Amino acid sequence: MKAPIRVAITGAAGNIGYALLFRLAAGDCYGPDQPIILQLVEIPPAMKALDGVCMELADCAFPLLHGIETADNPADGFKGANQIFMVGARPRSKGMERADLIQANGPIFVAQGKAIESAAADDVRAVVVGNPCNTNALICAKNAPGVPEGRITAMTRLDQNRAVSQVATKAGALASDVERMVVWGNHSPTMFADYFHATVKGQAVTSAVDEGWLQNDFLPLVGKRGAAIIEARGASSAASAASAAIDHMSTWWHGTKEGQWTSMAVPSHGQYGAPEGVMFSFAVTVSGGEYQIVDGIEHSDFAKEKLAATGDELANEREVVKDLLG
Amino acid sequence: MKAPIRVAITGAAGNIGYALLFRLAAGDCYGPDQPIILQLVEIPPAMKALDGVCMELADCAFPLLHGIETADNPADGFKGANQIFMVGARPRSKGMERADLIQANGPIFVAQGKAIESAAADDVRAVVVGNPCNTNALICAKNAPGVPEGRITAMTRLDQNRAVSQVATKAGALASDVERMVVWGNHSPTMFADYFHATVKGQAVTSAVDEGWLQNDFLPLVGKRGAAIIEARGASSAASAASAAIDHMSTWWHGTKEGQWTSMAVPSHGQYGAPEGVMFSFAVTVSGGEYQIVDGIEHSDFAKEKLAATGDELANEREVVKDLLG
Repeated sequence: MKAPIRVAITGAAGNIGYALLFRLAAGDCYGPDQPIILQLVEIPPAMKALDGVCMELADCAFPLLHGIETADNPADGFKGANQIFMVGARPRSKGMERADLIQANGPIFVAQGKAIESAAADDVRAVVVGNPCNTNALICAKNAPGVPEGRITAMTRLDQNRAVSQVATKAGALASDVERMVVWGNHSPTMFADYFHATVKGQAVTSAVDEGWLQNDFLPLVGKRGAAIIEARGASSAASAASAAIDHMSTWWHGTKEGQWTSMAVPSHGQYGAPEGVMFSFAVTVSGGEYQIVDGIEHSDFAKEKLAATGDELANEREVVKDLLG
Repeated sequence: MKAPIRVAITGAAGNIGYALLFRLAAGDCYGPDQPIILQLVEIPPAMKALDGVCMELADCAFPLLHGIETADNPADGFKGANQIFMVGARPRSKGMERADLIQANGPIFVAQGKAIESAAADDVRAVVVGNPCNTNALICAKNAPGVPEGRITAMTRLDQNRAVSQVATKAGALASDVERMVVWGNHSPTMFADYFHATVKGQAVTSAVDEGWLQNDFLPLVGKRGAAIIEARGASSAASAASAAIDHMSTWWHGTKEGQWTSMAVPSHGQYGAPEGVMFSFAVTVSGGEYQIVDGIEHSDFAKEKLAATGDELANEREVVKDLLG
């Protein structure tokens, strides 16, 4: 049996946290031979509810769960953490604009960045799930300058999974038949799910699936999926967001398979015309715990416009929080 | 890749269902090489919420999830089902006594028993999670006389897992260090978690753990755990109940390991003095999809009293529903 790893989760008593923790403890992320110690972080008013979640985790008698610790602040919660899921964020309240939301979340991610730098393990890998996740991750990384670049990332895997599912359904195929479906840019309605390089059963999606549907319906379907789920369920996506977070960290841990790509929002160095320094979702491959942005993908003019628009949005978000960037 | 199996779940849009479905689709129950088709059953007013759950399941792009079907009745929902989780039940409303609850649930499980007999696959295995689960399972089985005896069972694995966790914590050990902790009788506060035959790290629990704690604290802790969780979380156990249901069906599917026991509530033939014909939780081993009640366990007078009390309760519950037993 391997030595346990320390996995920290913020927002652990929330709905996404509740959907995430039990799957982590069951081995869904790091595999059936990797024990974990969960470090659950919440804000002080949620600590009692978190106790209840801890009781339920214990009640599962998970063989891989070697410990449960709780903290009401990230400096304690991230101590020695090898893997961090930053799920907690201030939700959008009525009448709040995106810029207000970005500013309201800023201080949370300043503190979490500092906590990663001061407390986490040397091999730390972190994903920000709490929205606006790209810019939250940027704030976090800029406040952890001693942490190697690229260790703090944001999640666009939910958009990728949604895009895969839509194309699979349209093509009468399984999700596992769809490959190289990658999401570019911001986790927001401007994200670009690049169907031009994706395949289904080895065939180009552009030839396997009706072109009119791809051009007119596909991107809005993916972009507005969150709202459609709220409308049907009466609650926002929780289990699917948790599942995408597991996929993001699991791929980073285990690597991509030969020839496969995945989407991760990582620090941009201007690749594919993205603004330098923002957290931009690219096509990446992963090996040995390190991601590599895929080189040499050719984009059409349509795609370039989409990339530019989502990049502009990220540059604007950065401008809103420029005082928080360390 | 194996052919997909059909897994039906009632109460699929409820809280336990929501905690269960994504773990089933991720492979937590039947393993990473067993595709599944989910057949989700709800009552008509919950079908819209169920649609939202289906959207989220699709959005996970689970490689093992080969299909999602929905039904607002068990006759459609159980069609061809190989594995059935009966999670849905009428919850206890204010002022309802246990006998009222048992009667209120009766007709649901009459219909589900008939549906299993008429619609499910020949190799069907079913677990009742919805409470009072032992007597619900009895009603179900008696209304499916053509289904081989022992295919419809009730879940006491949550009690077992809670007992394992309490002893592990007390002994400073891991859950995986505790073996042969088995729950007898009814899934109710009368259940008997038999620590006399359990071991922790190979040592008898009775010698590894403080005897006073075992005699005075342990059984009430396990028996009242559900209420303690409601008090802390402000909501009843969901993820831990779902996890126990997965454990129950996973053990039935994969078998127990050499020397291990597990708890399943199954038709009694009077073993260990249990009333004949009720669904009584015994120590069992499982191999090839068939459980076997463990023979020759010696019980102390204290244990015999506990077994008699929980058996009496089950006999009384059967009396309450005698008109529903086919």
